Amino acid sequence: MERPLPRPGVDEVLVKIKMAGICSTDLEIMKGYLPFEGILGHEFVGTVVQGSEKECREEGLEKLIGRRVVASINLPCYSCAACKKGLYNHCFKIKTLGMRDKDGAFAEYLIIKQENLYLVPETLDDREAVFVEPIAAAVEIAEKIHIKPTARVLILGDGKLGLITAMVLMALGLDVGIIGRHADKLKVLDGQDIRTYLPEEFEGMADILVDCSGNSSGLKMAMDMVRPEGKVVLKTTVADSQAFNLSSVAVNEISIIGSRCGPFDPALRLLKRNDLPLNRMIDSVYKLEDGVQAMERAAQQGVLKVLLDME
Amino acid sequence: MERPLPRPGVDEVLVKIKMAGICSTDLEIMKGYLPFEGILGHEFVGTVVQGSEKECREEGLEKLIGRRVVASINLPCYSCAACKKGLYNHCFKIKTLGMRDKDGAFAEYLIIKQENLYLVPETLDDREAVFVEPIAAAVEIAEKIHIKPTARVLILGDGKLGLITAMVLMALGLDVGIIGRHADKLKVLDGQDIRTYLPEEFEGMADILVDCSGNSSGLKMAMDMVRPEGKVVLKTTVADSQAFNLSSVAVNEISIIGSRCGPFDPALRLLKRNDLPLNRMIDSVYKLEDGVQAMERAAQQGVLKVLLDME
Repeated sequence: MERPLPRPGVDEVLVKIKMAGICSTDLEIMKGYLPFEGILGHEFVGTVVQGSEKECREEGLEKLIGRRVVASINLPCYSCAACKKGLYNHCFKIKTLGMRDKDGAFAEYLIIKQENLYLVPETLDDREAVFVEPIAAAVEIAEKIHIKPTARVLILGDGKLGLITAMVLMALGLDVGIIGRHADKLKVLDGQDIRTYLPEEFEGMADILVDCSGNSSGLKMAMDMVRPEGKVVLKTTVADSQAFNLSSVAVNEISIIGSRCGPFDPALRLLKRNDLPLNRMIDSVYKLEDGVQAMERAAQQGVLKVLLDME
Repeated sequence: MERPLPRPGVDEVLVKIKMAGICSTDLEIMKGYLPFEGILGHEFVGTVVQGSEKECREEGLEKLIGRRVVASINLPCYSCAACKKGLYNHCFKIKTLGMRDKDGAFAEYLIIKQENLYLVPETLDDREAVFVEPIAAAVEIAEKIHIKPTARVLILGDGKLGLITAMVLMALGLDVGIIGRHADKLKVLDGQDIRTYLPEEFEGMADILVDCSGNSSGLKMAMDMVRPEGKVVLKTTVADSQAFNLSSVAVNEISIIGSRCGPFDPALRLLKRNDLPLNRMIDSVYKLEDGVQAMERAAQQGVLKVLLDME
């Protein structure tokens, strides 16, 4: 179906997408996790092709046209009660790129608010920049809770989010371990000084456990692997639900902290400064017109990042 | 004066010093900051030459003899009331290398408890390893308080500790600025994506301000540069004192947090992972027998790190 080229409104820009990533959340939305029927896609890098002559938030004097950008995905209304308390990511009328009331990046173009844009440093190529959104989501863990430099951090799950979270927390200087069922996926982290375990191998207790299992039974496993008074960070968002007995949380005085989208500035800084093995995360790259096959590939068990190349 | 070679006791090792660094604290001790009359020196790298056959705490199966090590500087008694509460760094009978009841590293050899040792990775050379102690002191800031990845961090003072703290907090992924009076010293940080300011240039407010001014008037300046509800981390330890009006602390709800020695494991991890411009920090290297000139050089205004080479 041919769609007309969208036109940017006030404070908006038109972005020509260069590359987009398929996230597990996209697959969960297709399974019914969110009632969304628009264009999917919230991980992307693109070029600004049209917009107001206003200056970009990030670099006051630079014009935006022709610049390479990534964008944060939440569009708050700035007028509801949550927004008035400054809780913009919890806006009652929030629009979210490729998830809620806002067409996403699996397209040739998208419209986005200028305030959501972040310029991509020239030293980063498109295949790195397309990972900024999930990297920001991993950085958010350190934004939410105090992770001491001496903390033993353990990540549960060797899916895309688990592997990226491991790389990011390592880049933040932490002592990181990761538990996964797939030796071939854990190999992505070779040479990164990250301890990797198959589930039966792990012994001991983490100070901070990050559940990236993408599985509703992950939390139960997490409880056995975190120390008393430790913290469990919940990154898993899944369509199904499972009964969970919370008594061990109280007895062992565990904190459970939900964590979602994260800040782009530190994510870009981290990506610029560290040589993360993101390239090993890429399973395959499809053209946009082969998007259906790309989604099918991404949905297969054990497949890492599938990218869409719009150029 | 010829001293006899010291002999390691139970759980101790004899270390042949390879290289040691002169710290501003050494100069302050000579001015009377602490009543210490032993051998100075708490920043060093050396080789274990004699000790028990026990295994090292850090690498269970490796023998220590012949290995290159650094060492944490505090030796708690493990029996006083503070130690019994786990506050080992605040032990009532604490011995501190080169500072209190314990001869330090400005010598050919020193004796240290095995539990204080940390193996130096082979990829680090001596001129990097000798900085582990001050790097650990900078890492301690993140151990003490929650620094969010989005926080604007400002360091006050471009002395050795200020410059190292800037490098370390940048390596931890933070948005770092530093204020100093010496453009030539701030040049050490060129290419590190750290904003540098002369005092008159700085405008704005930091979320977290680290006082490394080494000057008793630094705290007053800090109060003008940190935002309401912000945090001021005090790293400055000086022999003199100055009156300070605390009312602005209460009115603006500032937290002031003292911070001292830090953890070696994350410091070594950070040093291994990041290419910090420590080489630019080195002013000069003296032989141990020229130690007096070395101290005189280190005490001169504007001089960065002076090292002693024992080999």
